[in-house]
Amino acid sequence: MKPSGVITLMTDFGLSEPYVGVMKAVILGHFASAVMVDLTHEIPAQDVAAASFWVERAYRWFPLGTVHLVVVDPGVGSARRAVVLEHEGHLFVGPDNGVFASLLDGASPKLVREIDQRLVGACQLSPTFHGRDLFAPVAAVLASGANDVKSIGAACELAPGHPWRPLRVPGEPLEGRVIVVDHFGNLITDIEACLLDMAPQVQVIVAGRTVPQVRTYADAKPGQCVALVGSFDTLEIAARDASAAMLLGVKLGDRVFIESN
Amino acid sequence: MKPSGVITLMTDFGLSEPYVGVMKAVILGHFASAVMVDLTHEIPAQDVAAASFWVERAYRWFPLGTVHLVVVDPGVGSARRAVVLEHEGHLFVGPDNGVFASLLDGASPKLVREIDQRLVGACQLSPTFHGRDLFAPVAAVLASGANDVKSIGAACELAPGHPWRPLRVPGEPLEGRVIVVDHFGNLITDIEACLLDMAPQVQVIVAGRTVPQVRTYADAKPGQCVALVGSFDTLEIAARDASAAMLLGVKLGDRVFIESN
Amino acid sequence: MKPSGVITLMTDFGLSEPYVGVMKAVILGHFASAVMVDLTHEIPAQDVAAASFWVERAYRWFPLGTVHLVVVDPGVGSARRAVVLEHEGHLFVGPDNGVFASLLDGASPKLVREIDQRLVGACQLSPTFHGRDLFAPVAAVLASGANDVKSIGAACELAPGHPWRPLRVPGEPLEGRVIVVDHFGNLITDIEACLLDMAPQVQVIVAGRTVPQVRTYADAKPGQCVALVGSFDTLEIAARDASAAMLLGVKLGDRVFIESN
Repeated sequence: MKPSGVITLMTDFGLSEPYVGVMKAVILGHFASAVMVDLTHEIPAQDVAAASFWVERAYRWFPLGTVHLVVVDPGVGSARRAVVLEHEGHLFVGPDNGVFASLLDGASPKLVREIDQRLVGACQLSPTFHGRDLFAPVAAVLASGANDVKSIGAACELAPGHPWRPLRVPGEPLEGRVIVVDHFGNLITDIEACLLDMAPQVQVIVAGRTVPQVRTYADAKPGQCVALVGSFDTLEIAARDASAAMLLGVKLGDRVFIESN
Repeated sequence: MKPSGVITLMTDFGLSEPYVGVMKAVILGHFASAVMVDLTHEIPAQDVAAASFWVERAYRWFPLGTVHLVVVDPGVGSARRAVVLEHEGHLFVGPDNGVFASLLDGASPKLVREIDQRLVGACQLSPTFHGRDLFAPVAAVLASGANDVKSIGAACELAPGHPWRPLRVPGEPLEGRVIVVDHFGNLITDIEACLLDMAPQVQVIVAGRTVPQVRTYADAKPGQCVALVGSFDTLEIAARDASAAMLLGVKLGDRVFIESN
Repeated sequence: MKPSGVITLMTDFGLSEPYVGVMKAVILGHFASAVMVDLTHEIPAQDVAAASFWVERAYRWFPLGTVHLVVVDPGVGSARRAVVLEHEGHLFVGPDNGVFASLLDGASPKLVREIDQRLVGACQLSPTFHGRDLFAPVAAVLASGANDVKSIGAACELAPGHPWRPLRVPGEPLEGRVIVVDHFGNLITDIEACLLDMAPQVQVIVAGRTVPQVRTYADAKPGQCVALVGSFDTLEIAARDASAAMLLGVKLGDRVFIESN
């Protein structure tokens, strides 16, 4: 795989301390011309499911050969594995806590390797910050082309994951949940657009209320809550110029139902 | 116009989801060596007036030939136009909701074009995220020099705008308003320094109180509220090591008066 | 000193206004290929001690020849000096308010220069934003190699500083304080790991409670508060999947004691 030179970063570190900046320092030390793009550093603390959702939805927008660094790592310093994964022409680096399982959706990844810290020269890891001491240098040497995935360590299996998509049981109503409450108060669900028949006879029910379906935010009346296919192809509940989360009293993890009339 | 290769980004998307990161992905796909600078992504949701103020104040600090992408877009998916504008050697890309009218301040822009999505290959727009699907690719091809403004679409007029400057009526007190409450609690007003005669006989009145005029923050006594010309050449109300917004109980949109003794 | 081309930025400006973006504009105007890395812009307003801590802990992770721009500047516009400092192969630029004294820890810096604004062409400074008008251009010309430190101004002494490390008085218990409450609610103290003997017979006492010592976050029981050596080699109080600050009711500046049994 030919690297694009781009590295994306997604963490739950926030931006109030220089944790992300220091990861970038380490990347630049190994690959001075890295192009680094922040996906977000505001994943809710230790919310592996949200990270799993966003990396799966976001990676495909980047050039082929991009390295995606995902560090939401409640098990840092424990025996959990550190892995590199190749999938659909992209590389993924991070702790093996299930965050990457959604990418595969049951398929086999092309390559998975357990990071051998001796091979990448990361001999003295701090027990608390593998993002800086292990994952950043691995991402950098992969993005620069100095190392290929096979050189990173031995083949391994991925840990069982956090599949963010709900299962559809034929004949039963589809039940999903709110996987992200975004900056605008939009409720992003885990129900993929392709699972929906957004015809009028399908009802979207949240917080005990049926919300009408529209095509775009501007189709809603001011203050009205509506359902639509969101920007990343999942069902979303939104309100015109307002927060659907506040109007409906709905929060992360709450359930959303799709019923056929 | 010779592009500088720099693209600035200003949105109301926040940083808690990867919306901005995915716009950057699309830009890199069209222009791998783009230099991207975030202006801010914390414009209050749908606050076109604040975006209008900041783009007008900020653009001039960038190299000539910079492309400024401004996506505060409550009308996404509706019939509002998408435009590109050339002004003073800079390019501006975004929804035509009045955000760019302040740049011109009554003057005629050198060039305005309505974005023809067929010309830029953006055939399948999502109805909810034109920042990613339309404005990002247009900004990229302009910044790379692959396209010039005239190739983007047909000439058009700009929508009437959000002129952020108050009008001065001769013989009457000047009335402005708080257009930004910044991170420090400083009250940034829409009253330009050139409209003021910051002589001692002019009084600045906010929340019913007259605040003394100083040259710099350090001239205020601890806890004192003062008026000064701020960093972007408008009247600002600040407090020494404290939040003027909290001390005065003043919020976004509140009025500020300038009276001559 | 050969510049790396990298400039780090640390301020208390926040990200809600384009203050940082405009500093980057000025840097690009002087040095179009600058590699800019944000350390953080969420230093608590005017908290010079926190900035002093973070710059000292973070700079060493960057390539030699990096320029570190630190603008936490309550005295902007007053008579406080503006300085450039060379130390351990890195350059530091900012207001001379003690923020750089911790870097030296009593040693003499290799070079300190007072910025002569005439030499760098910054003739018309705003009285409120030297980050943009003075420090950004100086950082840019140093990082590009257009100027060396000696060309920036006359030699001077640094202002007395904010040494963030507590003194150890032989025979007395070591007393430190919480210097950062981070994004996770971890309590980062100013007690360096090398001052500690993390043996079982040493007790860490905070908020009147003795907290057990562990090696990594995953060693704590859920909800338990523990003491460990943090990622930047100082004593840290953390809780498993929770905020130690909330659990203990401890805040910035509170004291932490180390006692030998």
